Amino acid sequence: MSKLLIVGTIAFDAVETPFGKTDKTLGGAATYIALSASKFDVATGIVSVVGGDFPEGYLEMFKSKGIDTTGIEIVKNGKTFFWKGKYHNDLNVRDTLTTELNVLADFNPKVPESFKNTDFLMLGNLHPNIQLSIIDQIPNRPKLTVLDTMNFWMDNTWDELLKALKKVDVVTINDEEARQLSGEYSLVKAAERISKFGPKFVVIKKGEHGALLFHEKQIFFAPALPLEEIFDPTGAGDTFAGGFIGYLAKTKDISFDNMKNAVIYGSNLASFCVEKFGTRRMEYLSKEEIQKRLTQFKELTQFEIALA
Amino acid sequence: MSKLLIVGTIAFDAVETPFGKTDKTLGGAATYIALSASKFDVATGIVSVVGGDFPEGYLEMFKSKGIDTTGIEIVKNGKTFFWKGKYHNDLNVRDTLTTELNVLADFNPKVPESFKNTDFLMLGNLHPNIQLSIIDQIPNRPKLTVLDTMNFWMDNTWDELLKALKKVDVVTINDEEARQLSGEYSLVKAAERISKFGPKFVVIKKGEHGALLFHEKQIFFAPALPLEEIFDPTGAGDTFAGGFIGYLAKTKDISFDNMKNAVIYGSNLASFCVEKFGTRRMEYLSKEEIQKRLTQFKELTQFEIALA
Repeated sequence: MSKLLIVGTIAFDAVETPFGKTDKTLGGAATYIALSASKFDVATGIVSVVGGDFPEGYLEMFKSKGIDTTGIEIVKNGKTFFWKGKYHNDLNVRDTLTTELNVLADFNPKVPESFKNTDFLMLGNLHPNIQLSIIDQIPNRPKLTVLDTMNFWMDNTWDELLKALKKVDVVTINDEEARQLSGEYSLVKAAERISKFGPKFVVIKKGEHGALLFHEKQIFFAPALPLEEIFDPTGAGDTFAGGFIGYLAKTKDISFDNMKNAVIYGSNLASFCVEKFGTRRMEYLSKEEIQKRLTQFKELTQFEIALA
Repeated sequence: MSKLLIVGTIAFDAVETPFGKTDKTLGGAATYIALSASKFDVATGIVSVVGGDFPEGYLEMFKSKGIDTTGIEIVKNGKTFFWKGKYHNDLNVRDTLTTELNVLADFNPKVPESFKNTDFLMLGNLHPNIQLSIIDQIPNRPKLTVLDTMNFWMDNTWDELLKALKKVDVVTINDEEARQLSGEYSLVKAAERISKFGPKFVVIKKGEHGALLFHEKQIFFAPALPLEEIFDPTGAGDTFAGGFIGYLAKTKDISFDNMKNAVIYGSNLASFCVEKFGTRRMEYLSKEEIQKRLTQFKELTQFEIALA
């Protein structure tokens, strides 16, 4: 069984969408990535930090999914990272109302001994120096390292981000961020330029418009599943990343052809995430539901063309 | 060989994009639809109107592609419809700078005798009363009728548009227009509602984000081909429609499975249209290039998943 180490935030989220709102519910990149990856048979561990206010029950929930929580530091007299945001009618756009870093401000991540030989490494969206620190604690380069990042780090920690990008195999990023990182408007050109920074594979996430996988001159596209209702897009990108790396860790095949399957699985898992608020849908999602939805993805995309 | 009748505008377009500009070049919905459909072996004819200022050479160009121009009325002392528009960096957004209806204002379309038994009918974006007049001139319902429309007709001729929609099999429409027409934000719900107006098949065009085909509970998605450069998006939607109906007319198979192929061909043809200004790319596009690009569409979308 492959080992998969995930580093990222664990948070309290408060979310408002046109369909409702939640008060302080479980969130964070590592949470969504791990819940998604846990749908595959992989030895998954999290490196993160929470405060003394973090409910023991959430840690138990992680453990019940087979997720190793040894790497989750608990700062007894600190508070858990808090994010509050609001989505508008167009769920692609969100406003951040509150960000309280709390224990995340002094986060000094430590990779547990048992994960220093991890096969797969997922660096969730965090300060690039934290991502670099994780890479440095792992003596032998993993089979595959995936890095997620965002515009904030491009604006504020450009040099550190470039250093981190040099050391990873795959970067996942949204379309606007790909344009900012590359200075190119065309996503084809953007991916080409970004791959020169280090990652040989570039995944550009376009939310409800799907995701593109680039490798050298090859391109693959995974659509988002058209849904009747989207309640809460929070965590969809991280859930996508978790499905992507979870599938690769399970199958141990990092060829471009298998990465096509991995982005389909990423999109598959993300399509569930948005159906309920917060992590609710992911906590109670069965493997059977995932396999059934895979059939929908096939019907949505596969064709047998008669040459005209 | 199937007959395909296309009704729509023939225009002079003046277009400005971030990559350059053109002065009064050949444009119009019927032009793009017909050029695209002409790549298939179909007996294609146009019903439209132009002024005395319309160059004989353009009509010759249509004829050289096997397009029947009998239905193109020439108003000697009138001027051809003129549209001037500007695209911004985000090529999904455009401003209309000038619209001079000219001969289009009094357009009274006449279906040529030779096309009154057309097998396929494409109603390009026009006043719904003109679309209805064409339908009424064809004694036996064609094998398939496709209607394209836009928000302008929803704002100004709602009742007439609903009358026209009742009489067609397929509607092609962009995502914002689908939302306006249905009052639903979710495109799945929008398509469901629109199909209740009449058309059993709904095609929602999302520009660079691809196109969705809906029929009852089935959904198929054709991505746009990611391109290094897009010079001019003008006509892409009409080129898509022309490829869609051209392929169906060629194969004479209007099953949902074959419509999947048709939207792939639509997207295929549209990907060429945007590579040069105006109609240039479509005029000189070979069947070999289209077949080669079909391979790219397969690589972009087809996957062989190993169940996890």
